[in-house]
Amino acid sequence: MASQHSFQAPTGTRDFYPADLSRLRYVQDAWRKVSVRHGFDEIDGPSFEHLELYTAKSGEGIVSELFSFERAGGEKTYALRPEFTPTLARMYASKANSLPRPTKWFWQQNCFRAERPQRGRLREFFQWNCDIIGDESPRADAEIIAVAVDAFRELGMTSDMLKVRISHRGAVETLLRSRGVLPEQLPGWFFLLDRAGKISNDDFTAEAGKLGMPANVAVDLLRLMAMSTPFEAPTTQMMLSEDASGRGPAYFKALFAELKAAGVAEWCVLNLGIVRGLAYYTGMVFEIHDTAGKERAVAGGGRYDGLIELFGGPPTPAVGFGMGDPVLSLVLQEKGLMPTDAQVVDRLGLRPDAYVISNGTESADAAVGTLVGELRRAGLHVRRSYKATKNVGKLLQDAAKAGPGSRGARFAVIIESGEEGGRATVKTLDSGEQTAEPVRFAEVAARLK
Amino acid sequence: MASQHSFQAPTGTRDFYPADLSRLRYVQDAWRKVSVRHGFDEIDGPSFEHLELYTAKSGEGIVSELFSFERAGGEKTYALRPEFTPTLARMYASKANSLPRPTKWFWQQNCFRAERPQRGRLREFFQWNCDIIGDESPRADAEIIAVAVDAFRELGMTSDMLKVRISHRGAVETLLRSRGVLPEQLPGWFFLLDRAGKISNDDFTAEAGKLGMPANVAVDLLRLMAMSTPFEAPTTQMMLSEDASGRGPAYFKALFAELKAAGVAEWCVLNLGIVRGLAYYTGMVFEIHDTAGKERAVAGGGRYDGLIELFGGPPTPAVGFGMGDPVLSLVLQEKGLMPTDAQVVDRLGLRPDAYVISNGTESADAAVGTLVGELRRAGLHVRRSYKATKNVGKLLQDAAKAGPGSRGARFAVIIESGEEGGRATVKTLDSGEQTAEPVRFAEVAARLK
Repeated sequence: MASQHSFQAPTGTRDFYPADLSRLRYVQDAWRKVSVRHGFDEIDGPSFEHLELYTAKSGEGIVSELFSFERAGGEKTYALRPEFTPTLARMYASKANSLPRPTKWFWQQNCFRAERPQRGRLREFFQWNCDIIGDESPRADAEIIAVAVDAFRELGMTSDMLKVRISHRGAVETLLRSRGVLPEQLPGWFFLLDRAGKISNDDFTAEAGKLGMPANVAVDLLRLMAMSTPFEAPTTQMMLSEDASGRGPAYFKALFAELKAAGVAEWCVLNLGIVRGLAYYTGMVFEIHDTAGKERAVAGGGRYDGLIELFGGPPTPAVGFGMGDPVLSLVLQEKGLMPTDAQVVDRLGLRPDAYVISNGTESADAAVGTLVGELRRAGLHVRRSYKATKNVGKLLQDAAKAGPGSRGARFAVIIESGEEGGRATVKTLDSGEQTAEPVRFAEVAARLK
Repeated sequence: MASQHSFQAPTGTRDFYPADLSRLRYVQDAWRKVSVRHGFDEIDGPSFEHLELYTAKSGEGIVSELFSFERAGGEKTYALRPEFTPTLARMYASKANSLPRPTKWFWQQNCFRAERPQRGRLREFFQWNCDIIGDESPRADAEIIAVAVDAFRELGMTSDMLKVRISHRGAVETLLRSRGVLPEQLPGWFFLLDRAGKISNDDFTAEAGKLGMPANVAVDLLRLMAMSTPFEAPTTQMMLSEDASGRGPAYFKALFAELKAAGVAEWCVLNLGIVRGLAYYTGMVFEIHDTAGKERAVAGGGRYDGLIELFGGPPTPAVGFGMGDPVLSLVLQEKGLMPTDAQVVDRLGLRPDAYVISNGTESADAAVGTLVGELRRAGLHVRRSYKATKNVGKLLQDAAKAGPGSRGARFAVIIESGEEGGRATVKTLDSGEQTAEPVRFAEVAARLK
């Protein structure tokens, strides 16, 4: 064998030891529960796709952000998925005719981005998507926002901590057109608006000038874009009244009614500064931001009515969002909402039912494996001592922190004798109560249930 | 946007639509439950590692079986994991001093192999591993076999369907040495024995001849290697009596006692023909085979006491196994043990609690979103009709197949009026019973719980 090496995980990836993974599973469990109760069905696809699947959606510019590779001697180039939406669109397109309308799918797995890792941004991370395909109504838009919000509720967050900033490509377009922007300039403007929060106001005004907008109009636009206003606020009405085509006001009125019905209106604000850089959005777009503002968007999504068709399906409306685990976990930690290791163990149902120890006699020592085997076959989560010590007091201390995250077992089972079918004392660790007389091995499982 | 394409999933990968994914989740759920009740904690690591992590364990020969790639302009070469054990060994080695002894870890995620896809063998597949690190006893070996067997039990299999074929590198070594094989020839022999089932007896004898073994000895060896015998059978005693060093008999006696205690002895046979090609095994090795023999091994594993040290940790005994989803799923299907879609939905807890429909009046139509929102916020799994029809009879038929896998909802909730807080009839779909009078919206959640 080769000499010893010291190996590291690749930059931007994570090793999940049990406690780390439990916290991820806690978040994923909330995602899953909420998806299910909102009526979404889970799907999955390959971790890598033909490179063209990604360039068809996002253009050649995406290639530098991908981990791509070829099969040795390879005819094809593949790339690790940077997001799931292209796979979803491909899967929907190939079975469009046999799928229900609407189709409601969720997905939660890992994605890969070949970018420089930084706080909240990794090369491999987990993501949760929900999509409604085949429904063009504002109700579907509201349903997508409601399922995202419900996950935050499930994780203990309230509407003062996060805001769903909602916009609409059409409304922003009307706003820009009314300020002299030409139709062919719109893509450039969406790109610029998406960067507005990341560059200085002076840089924005300079960039706007290059696109032909006078500085005072650009400053005014910037102010409008920075505003987040509740849907019922007079300011919102004023902003929407600017929408000469009438598309914005009617849409937002219908959306807001649906958001109210779904019980999430107090989480939502209008913010026409949200444009989402991704070129494929066609209608409503939204981002969910920590109101403390320390992190980037916790989630984002919108309507993409052209994508299924692009991937070979019939023209099909669709709306969805994505939420990643790194930023969400940071936000939960900052707000003190990440449960302790022991709490996570309880929520995930990982607390051991029993911890089996021997009283130190030879027959009891020899019977540990048998009793553990019996109890596990009865469906119980059983751990045991592997120590050579015969100090029952010390072993009971071990039982009180026997599970993952040091969560103690519900019961200690102390084998008193392995003879004649075996006998054991069953001790409830939370209360200290124990059976007055040792019980037969055959009765232990029933006692624990 | 580009013109329409028709895209395909990469060769050897799978699209999991809801019913397909439910079947995978059913298997993974069994893996997880069994891991937890046997006291294993879950870990995870990166989907790709530095290429050297894999070549350090398996040599340069592995490279052609890997999907490897570089970061653009890249300093490092990475590879998608073909298995998890190198990551586990790296993770253990880097924290060896702070981890409990024994450490019991399980893992279930995806692996990648750049080989030609065939029945039961894919380029991306899911795998389940359990490992016990820091325990060199036969008890740990038995515990690893017991957790694997318990998963088959959980999935409805019995000991007549599968057999755990157990061997030991040391015992095979003794057997070979007694037939004149020299120590330096052992690696070549292990390689040849691993191929014994895949090549003809004549080819085997010819290969053995090249290694210096007379044909009659080789034929006798082959016969011995092909035998699977229960541990208590006289033949087993005879085979073990050949082990001049005594290592085999003592080990197998201890192992068998532990397998009996763990309640899995009837699943296990001795088969000295099991050698496992992987060079890093150091002691007990096993494979679990379908007794109908149609498929390759469903699972395999063994003891690898040198690997943690190879990856920079202290000398540490370890034993574990891996089980993939493709062969297992084929075996379940062949034996009629894969549950129906509706059964899977019940087992995974995915049956909808309620399906909400309107009685067709305007106020009821308008209240669907509100009631659905209330019930979901109460934690219930609620689906609704999206159809424009007002035919309540047809909508009730939809309710009876509203869930994934066409599993009907537990209750249909028919909104009778949206006025004055709303009223709805609650109908139990399995029995047909329904509330005598419509109940207030505020009471519906309690009725469903």
